[in-house]
Amino acid sequence: MDKIYVLGHKNPDTDTIISSIIFADYLNFAWKNAQAIKLWNINNETKFILESAWIIEPVTMTSLPEWTKVALVDHNENSQAIDWLDSLEIVAIVDHHKIGNFSSESPLFIRIEKLCSTASILYKMMKAENIIPTQPQARLIISAILSDSLHYRSSTTQEEDKIIVEELNKIALIPSIEDYALQMFNAKSDLWDISVEELIKIDYKEFEFNSIKAWIGTIETTNPAYSLWRKLEILDWMKKIKKENNLNFIMLSVVDILNEKNITIVPTQDEIDIIKKVFSVDTMDNLVDLWKRLSRKKEIVPQLTEYFKNN
Amino acid sequence: MDKIYVLGHKNPDTDTIISSIIFADYLNFAWKNAQAIKLWNINNETKFILESAWIIEPVTMTSLPEWTKVALVDHNENSQAIDWLDSLEIVAIVDHHKIGNFSSESPLFIRIEKLCSTASILYKMMKAENIIPTQPQARLIISAILSDSLHYRSSTTQEEDKIIVEELNKIALIPSIEDYALQMFNAKSDLWDISVEELIKIDYKEFEFNSIKAWIGTIETTNPAYSLWRKLEILDWMKKIKKENNLNFIMLSVVDILNEKNITIVPTQDEIDIIKKVFSVDTMDNLVDLWKRLSRKKEIVPQLTEYFKNN
Repeated sequence: MDKIYVLGHKNPDTDTIISSIIFADYLNFAWKNAQAIKLWNINNETKFILESAWIIEPVTMTSLPEWTKVALVDHNENSQAIDWLDSLEIVAIVDHHKIGNFSSESPLFIRIEKLCSTASILYKMMKAENIIPTQPQARLIISAILSDSLHYRSSTTQEEDKIIVEELNKIALIPSIEDYALQMFNAKSDLWDISVEELIKIDYKEFEFNSIKAWIGTIETTNPAYSLWRKLEILDWMKKIKKENNLNFIMLSVVDILNEKNITIVPTQDEIDIIKKVFSVDTMDNLVDLWKRLSRKKEIVPQLTEYFKNN
Repeated sequence: MDKIYVLGHKNPDTDTIISSIIFADYLNFAWKNAQAIKLWNINNETKFILESAWIIEPVTMTSLPEWTKVALVDHNENSQAIDWLDSLEIVAIVDHHKIGNFSSESPLFIRIEKLCSTASILYKMMKAENIIPTQPQARLIISAILSDSLHYRSSTTQEEDKIIVEELNKIALIPSIEDYALQMFNAKSDLWDISVEELIKIDYKEFEFNSIKAWIGTIETTNPAYSLWRKLEILDWMKKIKKENNLNFIMLSVVDILNEKNITIVPTQDEIDIIKKVFSVDTMDNLVDLWKRLSRKKEIVPQLTEYFKNN
């Protein structure tokens, strides 16, 4: 039986890694031959979670042979996927993002829901098939929900996500979800020994809005001051990345998880003009106060999509 | 609460009508305000099914006001959807077809599976929410599966579809599925009093393969001779439709349900050249023997997609 590689987006976050692991387990449960892989190094939050659940991280593979079968989790857009996606055979997609110009030659399995994490959808799929998660699986799915929802602070959080955490914790038995979430966020905020380049690439995604190539980064942290201190260095690096990748637009949001605030860094007048129009805000010294916009998927990307459609 | 209109593809077949009805019921069960509508008259098979289940057909609406909320069943491509789809707000898609260049600004509910009918997927959704179908609902879902799978003759049929029919017939209590399917197909084949234009438009879909506009029609019947007798008239009408709609390609398959044979009518040398290359067959007098290719979705469209991608 052909192997199915299960993979998330470039520059993996916690939900992408956990969903790859859980979906591979789900497929193997149905007697498929599936393996989770990742496209790049995991961040410190994911590392903490996997270690605490005694689960080994997926291996990194940055390319696959032509016509390999793949199942995509937590993304569907070409710009965020493994290189040469067009040459692979996509057999399934489980995701919670907008659809970006997706086409297929034949029908395939697609499941997209507006839940806060892809892992929530995977749990619903397990439940529909009467598959009871193991303790590590339950712990991982809870972690993905807490990570993507910033422990329910993000506006993407649905009542259903919270109910799933409650249900799963009857198996995972995490003594205090609140303490555990804080440990996760502190692990994620441990950025002292990384370079500026690594810092701004911690969680970015590329989008194509019509012909506009955009790069939208986020640093979710319990310690925003640390990133903002390094603003000048960050600005230099953003200009460099913009040039090297022929981007038309680049922004980096520093999201203060605990205080629910978004301060965004933009390098040039191009971005400042657009940001001002789209979000009706003022900018100062290359910083924009985007207030409580914690969710890129819900509170930033749709607004930019709309803007670039008309401009 | 905004009303959600639930609608299938242009030129509705049984699965499109039944899926609209069932999905509207499902949404209303979750306290939404949903109404099934259709884009055009139902065929004789669907009429027979609805009458036998004592269900009233959805009203026809061919356009909706800007920003109306819609849920799409059994289709996702613009060319098959209600006019001005771009001006409406799509809140959900449940389908079993390939994806044709789909984009959205925000995440939405999408569920696509390779089952033989959209109604099969809707039944799985009901089951996952512990919703037990009523007797008419069970009868309708069984009918959609029998219709789209030509009572399991089509290669799109999955083991899961058959199991769903068995499960549902514990509620629907149809004495003989085989007799009932034959009654459905005979109702569908009752074409004596319709015009040639109606005949060739009984079940067609428009596709865009790169820049190629194609029109692929099917007549599923227990009496293929009736349609083939009218070949000369049909050819005239096909040429007319091709010209009027600026099509590059048009074909019409007459599918003999009981003997599982596909004889396809093509009007000009353009189509003949393509069909010969794609399916490695010979043509004679504008007729092509496509043998056992009963499924447009699985055995015709992917092959043409592939061809037009490279030519």
